[in-house]
Amino acid sequence: MSIIEEARRGIITDEIKSISKLEKVSPEKVRKRIAEGKIMLLRNVKRPSKKLVPIGKGLTTKININIGTSSEVIDLDMELEKVKISNKWGDTLMDLSTGGDIDEIRRKIIDKSDLPVGTVPVYQAFIQSFKKKSGGAYFSEDELLSIVERQLKDGVAFMTIHAGLTRELAIRALKSDRVIPIVSRGGDMIAGWMIHNGKENPYRTNWKYLLELFKEYDATISLGDALRPGATADAHDEFQIGELIETARLVKDAINNGVQVMVEGPGHVPLNEVAWDVKLMKKLTGGVPYYVLGPLVIDVGAPYDHIASSIGAAIASAAGADLLCYLTPAEHLSLPNAKQVEEGAIAYRIAAHAGDIVKLGKKVRKWDDEVSYYRGKLEWDKMIEKLIDPEQAYKVYTQFGEPNVKACTMCGGYCPMMWAMEQVKKIG
Amino acid sequence: MSIIEEARRGIITDEIKSISKLEKVSPEKVRKRIAEGKIMLLRNVKRPSKKLVPIGKGLTTKININIGTSSEVIDLDMELEKVKISNKWGDTLMDLSTGGDIDEIRRKIIDKSDLPVGTVPVYQAFIQSFKKKSGGAYFSEDELLSIVERQLKDGVAFMTIHAGLTRELAIRALKSDRVIPIVSRGGDMIAGWMIHNGKENPYRTNWKYLLELFKEYDATISLGDALRPGATADAHDEFQIGELIETARLVKDAINNGVQVMVEGPGHVPLNEVAWDVKLMKKLTGGVPYYVLGPLVIDVGAPYDHIASSIGAAIASAAGADLLCYLTPAEHLSLPNAKQVEEGAIAYRIAAHAGDIVKLGKKVRKWDDEVSYYRGKLEWDKMIEKLIDPEQAYKVYTQFGEPNVKACTMCGGYCPMMWAMEQVKKIG
Repeated sequence: MSIIEEARRGIITDEIKSISKLEKVSPEKVRKRIAEGKIMLLRNVKRPSKKLVPIGKGLTTKININIGTSSEVIDLDMELEKVKISNKWGDTLMDLSTGGDIDEIRRKIIDKSDLPVGTVPVYQAFIQSFKKKSGGAYFSEDELLSIVERQLKDGVAFMTIHAGLTRELAIRALKSDRVIPIVSRGGDMIAGWMIHNGKENPYRTNWKYLLELFKEYDATISLGDALRPGATADAHDEFQIGELIETARLVKDAINNGVQVMVEGPGHVPLNEVAWDVKLMKKLTGGVPYYVLGPLVIDVGAPYDHIASSIGAAIASAAGADLLCYLTPAEHLSLPNAKQVEEGAIAYRIAAHAGDIVKLGKKVRKWDDEVSYYRGKLEWDKMIEKLIDPEQAYKVYTQFGEPNVKACTMCGGYCPMMWAMEQVKKIG
Repeated sequence: MSIIEEARRGIITDEIKSISKLEKVSPEKVRKRIAEGKIMLLRNVKRPSKKLVPIGKGLTTKININIGTSSEVIDLDMELEKVKISNKWGDTLMDLSTGGDIDEIRRKIIDKSDLPVGTVPVYQAFIQSFKKKSGGAYFSEDELLSIVERQLKDGVAFMTIHAGLTRELAIRALKSDRVIPIVSRGGDMIAGWMIHNGKENPYRTNWKYLLELFKEYDATISLGDALRPGATADAHDEFQIGELIETARLVKDAINNGVQVMVEGPGHVPLNEVAWDVKLMKKLTGGVPYYVLGPLVIDVGAPYDHIASSIGAAIASAAGADLLCYLTPAEHLSLPNAKQVEEGAIAYRIAAHAGDIVKLGKKVRKWDDEVSYYRGKLEWDKMIEKLIDPEQAYKVYTQFGEPNVKACTMCGGYCPMMWAMEQVKKIG
């Protein structure tokens, strides 16, 4: 019985109790929302993740970290270092490896990860095909499905399944005057496969079988956005929205079949279109969790796209996005190194918290109030130890030497804040 | 005759023509908006800045960079290094020095700056007082005004004048249950002075004289926000808005007297209150330029407050803020070093551009469209040279060695984007 089915029978499981405690939402609300598909718990019956990661309505915003090799840069140690960083900063982890022994790398990453691990199974099918015959379309539907199953067996908790992309939409997008027709890697792979083989999307033709597979492992389908905008100029055109409509139909089918599902969104979106993008998705899909890449609100920000996209991510979170897929400073330029993974993760923790202050109010703002309280009292040690990154904060605090005044090196000996308070105390 | 008065007489000056060309707004629109106080040109008749910096309605969002010594860290070379960085990345520069020979430092900074330079004159009065008598309130109104005049003579183009703060508001704020009663340094100085001396705000009692002074130099009054929120919990309370109402009254008086004026705003503000903060200010003041610090949308982000505040800054810019005052990674912890000044400046260039895409549309998005065009074509050199920071971008692009494929190290040899386009070309 899947988690959705259990919830529908009204059972308050231990998992639901744990979610309730973690997120400070009543068990009954959690149960009801799981039953409706509005809250999901990323997991795989083969391998419960060490960290409990519930995602969805009324819960804190979570962040996803992408790692993985490329054909050019295959360095397992570096990837495992990124896993460590993800364990510290992240909520979910995706292994997007396309270089080296993909099965082996995935298993090692899953082994070291405390977080639910996700993948994009078409990558493996495409790479295998390329290695065999120098072309990406030489894999059968059965081969693709068996890769999905193998990855589920390994304990993958969620997978990007580009089932919203129809052959007709793909061809029209590729022939369109979009600045970047299909920026999604998996989207291009499925599109190219359909065109080359003259067939419909294998995820669509095998949809019922996919539902059975995911139900068996109680894993989550993350419906991919093959036609997401890769340039702000392409945002919210007929292709992006056309695919979203197809995706929304599949969402309802998955939920009806007791399979957990979320929807992937954005990419490059101007700032003023971010909030209503979230509202539109929630309306069309009936409110299942939204998993948003960025959004990036400009196209020119590399190598600072972790900053440029944390702007969009914070707005998306405040508007109701549930899981934010981070970008690193290497986005658009290179595979990230471990330090860049950490920089991206921190920017997204900030974005998620900014959104949560709006979404969840005082329950999460307590943290800020505490920091500001100690800040106002100039209690530096207590203030610093409660910051998002106390270790780095302390380094900056002491960068010109340990301050020898109660104030900071900004105002030095003359803290006007302390002084003004002294003045007002005198007048009682 | 001040720039506002010239504009009111209908004169299209060479300056107006230059602004028109720079910002692609018709000369007549520029003239009309200057006459109404909706566009201003930061300058000082004693010292025209090398860079033309018009600010306001229909123009690109500008960014301000704060530098300056503290009593603890006095390193003129470092400050002049920050001036160089500001010349590269910034639009306006504020010298907030409180340590060392303040006059001397200011003159050197102005000498090396290509940008209009601003100051907060009460700092100097306060520090002088402290040095003389270990207390911040031992300066006369005349001493304060003579500091203002001296700084104007040195060529300062704009000054923070905390004239919106009444004695009554200051006392109530200091006695309130705000998490941080008065976080503004200048605000605390004026508040403490008023309480200690039992007098009204010297900027208020000498307002007419101040207008004459600023008119003489055709410099700009930046009305300070002494009661800005220093914690998200304090945002938009009666103190912040009470001061804004006082400030808005002074705005109208300044404009009527032909003196350029802008209004300073925010600090710590939750994400969902940023956009309407800008709308409220514009409504109350009749639409003069808004100069916004951050806003910071969380309190816990140090040492990454350049990121946390670029979120608020981008939203503010999109909503109509005209000049964004940057924060560095050292905010709340230390005086920034030169590298941190650069990191802050870049985050704010990103925020300003994100806002401008919304405010000004295709006129500024052309830049993004071009980058995305080359990105889609995988023309790496052309793409990289058009990014916000080509030098750093190139370093990241080659961080695992010069890529030896047309694609990037992310996908390596298998570029799905190129491959899918090849497939669709085959079917014509």
